[in-house]
Amino acid sequence: MQNDRLLRAIRREPVDRTPIWFMRQAGRYLPEYRATRAQAGDFISLMSNPELATEVTLQPLRRFPLDAAILFSDILTVPDAMGLGLHFVEGEGPKFHRPLRDEAACQNLATPAISEKLDYVFKAVSLIKQELDGSVPLIGFCGSPWTLLTYMVEGGASKDYQNTKKLIYDRPELAEQVLDKLCSALIDYLCNQIEAGADTVMMFDSWGGVLSTPAYLKFSLAPMQKIISAVKAKHPNTPITLFTKGGGQWLPAIAESGCDMVGLDWQTDIHLARQQIGDQVALQGNMDPTLLYTDPSVIRDEVARILAGFGQGSGHVFNLGHGITPQVNPEHVAAMVEAVQQISPQYHR
Amino acid sequence: MQNDRLLRAIRREPVDRTPIWFMRQAGRYLPEYRATRAQAGDFISLMSNPELATEVTLQPLRRFPLDAAILFSDILTVPDAMGLGLHFVEGEGPKFHRPLRDEAACQNLATPAISEKLDYVFKAVSLIKQELDGSVPLIGFCGSPWTLLTYMVEGGASKDYQNTKKLIYDRPELAEQVLDKLCSALIDYLCNQIEAGADTVMMFDSWGGVLSTPAYLKFSLAPMQKIISAVKAKHPNTPITLFTKGGGQWLPAIAESGCDMVGLDWQTDIHLARQQIGDQVALQGNMDPTLLYTDPSVIRDEVARILAGFGQGSGHVFNLGHGITPQVNPEHVAAMVEAVQQISPQYHR
Repeated sequence: MQNDRLLRAIRREPVDRTPIWFMRQAGRYLPEYRATRAQAGDFISLMSNPELATEVTLQPLRRFPLDAAILFSDILTVPDAMGLGLHFVEGEGPKFHRPLRDEAACQNLATPAISEKLDYVFKAVSLIKQELDGSVPLIGFCGSPWTLLTYMVEGGASKDYQNTKKLIYDRPELAEQVLDKLCSALIDYLCNQIEAGADTVMMFDSWGGVLSTPAYLKFSLAPMQKIISAVKAKHPNTPITLFTKGGGQWLPAIAESGCDMVGLDWQTDIHLARQQIGDQVALQGNMDPTLLYTDPSVIRDEVARILAGFGQGSGHVFNLGHGITPQVNPEHVAAMVEAVQQISPQYHR
Repeated sequence: MQNDRLLRAIRREPVDRTPIWFMRQAGRYLPEYRATRAQAGDFISLMSNPELATEVTLQPLRRFPLDAAILFSDILTVPDAMGLGLHFVEGEGPKFHRPLRDEAACQNLATPAISEKLDYVFKAVSLIKQELDGSVPLIGFCGSPWTLLTYMVEGGASKDYQNTKKLIYDRPELAEQVLDKLCSALIDYLCNQIEAGADTVMMFDSWGGVLSTPAYLKFSLAPMQKIISAVKAKHPNTPITLFTKGGGQWLPAIAESGCDMVGLDWQTDIHLARQQIGDQVALQGNMDPTLLYTDPSVIRDEVARILAGFGQGSGHVFNLGHGITPQVNPEHVAAMVEAVQQISPQYHR
């Protein structure tokens, strides 16, 4: 690997500067992404085509000196492979044709042959890996069981997760059955990504933060721990990152999940997070993505603040605290990346 | 005051059981509220009519043995009084005709004659107080300066608060000018509510939780502290509650704001919160409002868990962690209130 800063930082080995990549770096804020997506026709056609998925994965690396590529895909590939029928409704986001509306739907849920049904994902991983040609690491990923469950039960995005919460509170054993099936599928999914070439994997727990503490520990963190331990048993040297958006209050528990790195949203203070858990795991984050709308000098100040917040030594991967939004000017992204490159070396002497 | 449990709990004086009221207790989940609102025509006509506002304020107290009434109003009355032109668009929530779109709009923002422009609110407070006739305390309230600023700059609800964040980051001095004007207006507003009869007041910082830690401290908490200290100077014996939704990570700072009680959302663990800050202030909360969709036996278990989490002694006001939602069955609310009444006395022996 020519540039292994990301992997070294996750292991807290010395680096010359803080590595940077950012969530949704292959995305709509880039005109070249929009062009490839137009060529594909729609989002699903784009992500399920290994050549086009490879192309958009590599696009941000041609523009910015990033320290990692992340597979272009979607967390909902897995419920789709389980037969729920993923589709996108313009302006409304992802939807499922066959959401889990009743007990029968939960019990009949199939554990799919992941390697076959999601073959297009693993093909993309191999192809990206080949194209990267040892330049930077490739990050694979999946959604957390809880986060996927919310989409599967609600049939799409939700405001208050009413049906999913009813399921976990009124029928906890049924919820756990579905979460178990999701765990099996996700273990297979991550292992297949690693076997196809992913150098590290990340679990996106986008909606763990809508739960109370005991519900989070039981229905979100525990299934993620199960996945981490099974993936680690098979691939002990592949680092795993866990990111619960809105999970700042649960960092000590998250750090004990067996993961190697914890993602921080932007509300969490990285200095306090390092004091709390930075000896156990690496930290990834945590700039407010909305900062990318501000003046480049403000972006630079914010980068400096976050780097200083983490402080001296390895163990920090710079990132946004959530995905970049489509209206961001790519020049502002360049300002962020440049600031990390220029300011961070002082913390690694 | 016949029932002063709320005020005693805020002061951490002995009570026979944990007091309960809940956010939006006068609201759309009640058929009698929907009838009065239909009579008024629309939301603004309802809240600006002191007689009808009094009627809906009292409705939940006729159904449930609650320990407080809360003024029926809206946090956006103040920006409306500042000339922004509040209106509601069906299905889209509150909007302003004249949002703060540029520097001139910020600088020309008028500090209104609150006692005159919001006379309808103070009339409602007097009337409610009279109708309550010393039965339970009346809670007055306002929105936090930061929360109001987001509506004023975005012109309504927002997804990422892009314009407001641009303002505070790119033009911090201009943002502080507007926040200062809001502070003056809100100090007047709360003092007038207290002088009209409110026994305690609460500040709703609905959107403080979308900020990074330093931005929260500077642009949300600091203005709230200014308000608390000015209101306390005039009304030292009126307890003040501060509630930042999503503020669980900042509880120690919030507890030092000078407030008497801190509101907790449902993600925050009340047991840990009491360990962290419960010696300085009382705590209010913190059931997930979505729990009200579950089976009454589940609601009862959750009430028991929260009461046990706070533990022995006074200093807890039971509440939801956010406002009740319109589709809730009032019988489920009754189950929650009854559970607090039945289970809590053991913690006050």
